[in-house]
Amino acid sequence: MLILERIKVAFIGAGSAIWSSRIVMDLLIHEDLRNRVDIWLMDISDWRLNLIYGFAKRYIDELKVDAKVFKTKDRVEAIKDADFVINSAMAGGHSYYEKMREISEKYGYYRGINSVEWNYVSDYHTIWGYYQFKLMLDIAKDVEAYAPNAWLINVANPVFELTTLVTRMVKKVKFIGLCHGHLGFLKAVEVLGMRLAKEKLGRDITSLCAMHDPECYSTIAKLIDFKDLEVEMSGFNHVIWLTKFRYAGEDAYKYLNDWIKEDAEKYWNVWKEFTANPFDIDLSPAAIDMYKTYGLLPIGDAVRGGTWKYHWDLQTKKYWYGPYGGPDSEIGWAMYLAALRRSLESLAMAVEDMSTPLVHRYPPQSSGESIVEIIDAIVNDKPKEFYYIYVPGKEEKIKVPAPLQVNIPNEGILNGIPNDVAVEIPVKIDGKGVHRKQLIQPPHKIYRYVLLHRLLRAEWALQAFLEGGRDSLIQWLVTDVRTKSMKQVEDVINALLKIPENEEMAKHYS
Amino acid sequence: MLILERIKVAFIGAGSAIWSSRIVMDLLIHEDLRNRVDIWLMDISDWRLNLIYGFAKRYIDELKVDAKVFKTKDRVEAIKDADFVINSAMAGGHSYYEKMREISEKYGYYRGINSVEWNYVSDYHTIWGYYQFKLMLDIAKDVEAYAPNAWLINVANPVFELTTLVTRMVKKVKFIGLCHGHLGFLKAVEVLGMRLAKEKLGRDITSLCAMHDPECYSTIAKLIDFKDLEVEMSGFNHVIWLTKFRYAGEDAYKYLNDWIKEDAEKYWNVWKEFTANPFDIDLSPAAIDMYKTYGLLPIGDAVRGGTWKYHWDLQTKKYWYGPYGGPDSEIGWAMYLAALRRSLESLAMAVEDMSTPLVHRYPPQSSGESIVEIIDAIVNDKPKEFYYIYVPGKEEKIKVPAPLQVNIPNEGILNGIPNDVAVEIPVKIDGKGVHRKQLIQPPHKIYRYVLLHRLLRAEWALQAFLEGGRDSLIQWLVTDVRTKSMKQVEDVINALLKIPENEEMAKHYS
Repeated sequence: MLILERIKVAFIGAGSAIWSSRIVMDLLIHEDLRNRVDIWLMDISDWRLNLIYGFAKRYIDELKVDAKVFKTKDRVEAIKDADFVINSAMAGGHSYYEKMREISEKYGYYRGINSVEWNYVSDYHTIWGYYQFKLMLDIAKDVEAYAPNAWLINVANPVFELTTLVTRMVKKVKFIGLCHGHLGFLKAVEVLGMRLAKEKLGRDITSLCAMHDPECYSTIAKLIDFKDLEVEMSGFNHVIWLTKFRYAGEDAYKYLNDWIKEDAEKYWNVWKEFTANPFDIDLSPAAIDMYKTYGLLPIGDAVRGGTWKYHWDLQTKKYWYGPYGGPDSEIGWAMYLAALRRSLESLAMAVEDMSTPLVHRYPPQSSGESIVEIIDAIVNDKPKEFYYIYVPGKEEKIKVPAPLQVNIPNEGILNGIPNDVAVEIPVKIDGKGVHRKQLIQPPHKIYRYVLLHRLLRAEWALQAFLEGGRDSLIQWLVTDVRTKSMKQVEDVINALLKIPENEEMAKHYS
Repeated sequence: MLILERIKVAFIGAGSAIWSSRIVMDLLIHEDLRNRVDIWLMDISDWRLNLIYGFAKRYIDELKVDAKVFKTKDRVEAIKDADFVINSAMAGGHSYYEKMREISEKYGYYRGINSVEWNYVSDYHTIWGYYQFKLMLDIAKDVEAYAPNAWLINVANPVFELTTLVTRMVKKVKFIGLCHGHLGFLKAVEVLGMRLAKEKLGRDITSLCAMHDPECYSTIAKLIDFKDLEVEMSGFNHVIWLTKFRYAGEDAYKYLNDWIKEDAEKYWNVWKEFTANPFDIDLSPAAIDMYKTYGLLPIGDAVRGGTWKYHWDLQTKKYWYGPYGGPDSEIGWAMYLAALRRSLESLAMAVEDMSTPLVHRYPPQSSGESIVEIIDAIVNDKPKEFYYIYVPGKEEKIKVPAPLQVNIPNEGILNGIPNDVAVEIPVKIDGKGVHRKQLIQPPHKIYRYVLLHRLLRAEWALQAFLEGGRDSLIQWLVTDVRTKSMKQVEDVINALLKIPENEEMAKHYS
């Protein structure tokens, strides 16, 4: 393949500034990319666009790399002749979601009509994702028209629905859906480490780990030889499962079973007391209950899923997900939005404050996201199945290999899933693109209870978007456990569609 | 192929006497079968077995055909070396269903925990079908062991789940799932006839048809040339749809559209007044609403499906299905069970009363079931895609060709459905067996809203049967719109499992 001289990377929705700044940093510190990358930032918000532009500009200057950065509000200008288009745009932003949620709750739909089985993630648009779906399709069509050789890498939610939608509708575009949720496999490694510490050192680090003490990771890193660790995860985005977990040639689920029997209670007691992060749920009672129920450990955002068993109300959520009820309760989500705002403010202040180098406040370090690793694999034709992430240890960062995991059409990889449905699977990437691997199949219970169920809702959401009509909203609601009558269904639809933001959507659904 | 001298046809669950007597009659009046068929009747109930045996015996004598009939309570004896095994056995009988339903209703599950979206048919076992699934598997294994060349034709419900189960688990057995629901396409023909009568004769027969006056069919039969009619139906058992409806080279759905616009109200007014049959719902407001919602006319038992929109409570059912709320309301089903009992009594009296020839009370006529037509096609190597049914006209019966429609594994016929899921499709049958045909695909709405949804529940029911565990019942109930709390879920499971009949099932689900 042709090794490009300069590389154009376009960020659509670049104003997702916390996220974009981390990827921009990854590009600017990558040895084989930083001196030839042209970064194009596009957003519809001036303030956000200027913020991320200011960040990139200063970072390039301070690092003295031969990168360039451009900003534009014109999507086509950003996309034209790009080699990579990265989309993180969120139609309507968080305020739109919150408004939709508030109206839903007035009519008895706790956390929104969008929140249903296997999809309680609070910003994962499905049935009310009209604008988000439309935006994604428009972007894909622009890429097809103005940058036909580009890779379109989408990190905007809902990754599952959007990947399925685009790969069905805009077939020529090289599309990858990306999520970092699979890094949750580190928590399984932590369990392995806790057990090895007990068995090999006679040392109980359960409480240290529950408190996220760097000592926990330092101890584990000395015990585990990552060459001997085999993990595989697959499923759909936000519903992936640890289908393979082996250490030193043996089934490592036995360590998890022992941990559940001997250490989980202790871990949970400390964790409940000390956890400050509503997302800290990878080893929560919910995760372990799902493991017991479905036979494999749910990874990353999969833990936020499940059925109503875990999500009836705040009390239920607290029982399963700890003191904040997980990230998707009214408490957890408010904390997340507040943290986002704080990070944005800090970023803005840091970019504006010329008295302190930006690299002091945001020291160069890789983000743990795989996106720039993927760009490197493609651009520089470096075959990769893994990339490295860094976990904080006591004295130094601990380097852990993580599988490259992407969302692409199934094409026969997972049994019983149609070919044109996006699956999240480990892959090999090189200059020729993305290559599927043979995988271990998820067990029947996960296929039947999780994947088929989640697929059903995805197809309903796609149907609603593609063909519209009021029936598609009725269909969604009439099988919802929160629905008590057809009147409730009609009322909530009317209320959601009559807000000014939904004028266009109301026509689509009429 | 070898044309067999004598043919052994075994009836398992032969005590489903109303049904069996019709099939026995079909065998005994069929020119190419009646003089060489050995009928083996098997049931566990002496009374029922003696009843159907008495019927067959007398019928053979009166018709003077060279058929033989045997009775046994030993399943293996019946199956051994059979050419065809016909199963209509219903584990536990109707009383088991009614008991399960009654307990469910105490805990807020109207019409039973078994009645859910796209499966409100009152004797279509799914989640509580443990004994029925087990019986079917046992029969299939007996056929595999004792009659490996036989065709196993199953008419016992749930045809969808049982066909999928057996064809997955007992792969060597030649299995056909059968239902007569597809004959509901005659109602679409009736609509065509009503419109043609208006257009060609200037005659409005809407009311006649709504009252099922034989004059309706006589008029239609004169107008329609069945050679010019093309119909195709596909889907899953009890959720099939009229994918093709053409007359004289034109789309015949236009007649339906005109009928809905101009005649439906009048039809419904007469129908509501006159209908005496809770199953008379093929052109009910529910059927037409489903057509408007999903884009095709639902055929036969598919009309009994739908979502909770049509089934919330008796009032809702009456609105959509007429004065009895359809066959699956508390009224309609009680009427059906009473009618069954009355028919059984009449049959018993007729068999015992030697003063009147049985052929006077049950005159020889074909039942409209396809089963003996299928046996004929296979045994006598007669390639068939259609068979003839008879509709009552004013002076004579009207002969109508109906497609041969069976339930077999999909194997790529319907898009997006896994290969090992049973679909109900039209086929060609000959001495070599059952041949799939290329079909028109159902529209997206039906794939997404109906087939995927129904498949989900089938897979859950199969999972519950195959792997057991309390979780599989919880999974079923936790997404049910009637569920208000986890306590309700636990309570109804406990109540259902503690009745004496469910002792074995309780172990399976513990």
